[in-house]
Amino acid sequence: MARRETVASGPGSRALVVDVIRSSGPVSRVELVQATGLTQPTISNIVRALIADGVVRETGDTVATGGKPRTLLAINSEASYGIGLHVGMGTATCVVTNTRGGMVGRQLIAAPEGTGEVGVARLSQLCRDTIHALGVDTRAVAGLTVVARGLVDVGHGRLPSVAPATLGPNLGAALAEQLGFPVLVASDAAAAAVGEYWVRQVSRDRLFGCLYMGTGISSGVVVDGALHRGASSNAGQIGHVSAVHNGLACPCGNCGCLDLYAAPPAVVTWVRTTPGLADRLGITPEETSWRAFDILARAALYGDDGAMAVLAPSTEMLATAAVTLVNLWDLDTLVLAGPGFAVAGSLYVKEIRRRLAERAFPRAIHDVQVDLSNNPRESVAIGGAALILQGSVSPGHGPEVSLNS
Amino acid sequence: MARRETVASGPGSRALVVDVIRSSGPVSRVELVQATGLTQPTISNIVRALIADGVVRETGDTVATGGKPRTLLAINSEASYGIGLHVGMGTATCVVTNTRGGMVGRQLIAAPEGTGEVGVARLSQLCRDTIHALGVDTRAVAGLTVVARGLVDVGHGRLPSVAPATLGPNLGAALAEQLGFPVLVASDAAAAAVGEYWVRQVSRDRLFGCLYMGTGISSGVVVDGALHRGASSNAGQIGHVSAVHNGLACPCGNCGCLDLYAAPPAVVTWVRTTPGLADRLGITPEETSWRAFDILARAALYGDDGAMAVLAPSTEMLATAAVTLVNLWDLDTLVLAGPGFAVAGSLYVKEIRRRLAERAFPRAIHDVQVDLSNNPRESVAIGGAALILQGSVSPGHGPEVSLNS
Repeated sequence: MARRETVASGPGSRALVVDVIRSSGPVSRVELVQATGLTQPTISNIVRALIADGVVRETGDTVATGGKPRTLLAINSEASYGIGLHVGMGTATCVVTNTRGGMVGRQLIAAPEGTGEVGVARLSQLCRDTIHALGVDTRAVAGLTVVARGLVDVGHGRLPSVAPATLGPNLGAALAEQLGFPVLVASDAAAAAVGEYWVRQVSRDRLFGCLYMGTGISSGVVVDGALHRGASSNAGQIGHVSAVHNGLACPCGNCGCLDLYAAPPAVVTWVRTTPGLADRLGITPEETSWRAFDILARAALYGDDGAMAVLAPSTEMLATAAVTLVNLWDLDTLVLAGPGFAVAGSLYVKEIRRRLAERAFPRAIHDVQVDLSNNPRESVAIGGAALILQGSVSPGHGPEVSLNS
Repeated sequence: MARRETVASGPGSRALVVDVIRSSGPVSRVELVQATGLTQPTISNIVRALIADGVVRETGDTVATGGKPRTLLAINSEASYGIGLHVGMGTATCVVTNTRGGMVGRQLIAAPEGTGEVGVARLSQLCRDTIHALGVDTRAVAGLTVVARGLVDVGHGRLPSVAPATLGPNLGAALAEQLGFPVLVASDAAAAAVGEYWVRQVSRDRLFGCLYMGTGISSGVVVDGALHRGASSNAGQIGHVSAVHNGLACPCGNCGCLDLYAAPPAVVTWVRTTPGLADRLGITPEETSWRAFDILARAALYGDDGAMAVLAPSTEMLATAAVTLVNLWDLDTLVLAGPGFAVAGSLYVKEIRRRLAERAFPRAIHDVQVDLSNNPRESVAIGGAALILQGSVSPGHGPEVSLNS
């Protein structure tokens, strides 16, 4: 059982009640007392406020108990929508979800040809178009989380390393101004972890980790139903952990970073520098990095030895990184998410499961369940939407800063 | 600010109240409402129960407010004692603390000459002697935590890798039977982290990590005032994280483990295999590993280049491991504890500070405060005592299993 010696925080009581209703509902107030350990008056007060805020509703059903029938409570699904906006290299994905974590719709835009850039105005338009196309009332939108790779400065709502650089580090504030609702910022692995946790309805008993592979590799951990954010929302940077002693210098400042050896761009570089391999696989010099990686992965899946030889070091190093995560966090659940696993996922899952079974420090005590996301390309955007909803359905439970709220 | 999106758990409310009184007391009930966010009726109920249980007392002082004077509450210091029993290679340290985390006394035993063993009967006697010598009433002892390096099986109260092997993996149960009070088991870094956190009175706003170096290297993290235990209390095993790609095979199952390259036994091996160095430093072949390490460290501190050359790789690898911990947890506070740092500590602190300032992923957002424990040899035993007290002063807040309670 995943346990921390948890210390209660008052505002978190509301978050806990919402989370229990969301995951176990419909439930009665009495069941909430039993599930949370809070007192009956406390539950009554919290539920009264949640109904007044439109977050929770009485379903109209009751449960007969032999005594007074108990009315059942459920999340008010249509009360609020969240938007996740995942900004990558030359693309952006906008996802809208409801409070149950169900995706209502999504749209994707790619940079106009030849520029490699998606500007702020186009991003705002993407969001507005998505909302409009889905028939969602703008007033029911709780807000948006813009998610990007790398360093996050939540104190100022900035994404200092967002790409492309033309979006500017103050992307969060710019979008808040243009769209007029609250905007949060988050890193990709954090959002993916939350998204996977919500969508998979992971039990709060599990210690849930997510290994994310996009342009880079990162991780997120959900403990007792809440994302581990760290001192500054910059936790989980497994891609910038030294995997090779005294290895290559990384722009992040460290050396031997996992990203430099095992992330898709590194793998594609090896493909292109292995004589004859790119040609044989049908990877042209103009092929984008992502298409090249997926072509390589598909070839390896179909048994091409040369392709597998290039991919294997990456799978082994990610498997070693998974052992690192398990040995440091003592995880019992690990999900792989992100576009890097969209085609190659099964190859990585296999190697990660193998290596954890052989090497994870706590393996004599418990297994680690390793699975591939059902939606590896969209975990981040879904999680972004989930993060903004956590903030709105559970005040005090959300990230530290909300711009223009 | 160190934040997790915390989810409240009911039983943790009591733990939170105790922790606020312990760290900020004496406080009034009104101040408890403000500090915790819990309701006034909830606070009243919790405080009433704590007074009845003898954990908290009214100090007899009041604070004038212009209205009704507020009575002040404080921890009942003499209500309970906790014992930490740290079992190492051929030695055992027994520490008794009170509920304020103040050490009341300690005793140390070493194995009888020539045997390298400390048996269970001798350990029980050590505990009884310590309690008796301090004039502590056995009925006021809340219990004992036996702390050892390596894998912990809290579900069964076992320490599978406890050394020496003659103590047996069921050490916890054996001690509980002989001593007659509750016995917990914990790993050394977990106990050290809790001990340092209590003794240093770290603010709950900080994300606190502890890097522990004894025979091996491990780590513990305290989040929102509570130890991160992971799925099975086996978190923090940084010593068994791969620091060298495809490196040496480790008995733990992994390869390239940090312990094999940087922990004191490895360093001492290099001293002994560097021609002439051991002689020059005055390290005899019979010298124990610990004395040899401390002699080496002292020589390096005094500027001996040969000694520094052997120690430097260890300091660099631990500094890289500190970067790993910061990049994964996003720590803002790191304390070094354990006998490995008793003499060599300042050399490690220097290198860790340097490397974090150059390489930590979130360095543009915040610093990491790195300090040496004030009591590096005893952090573990103090923490063990703290763990049992957390369990007794805060029911439901303690570790998963209590033997013979």
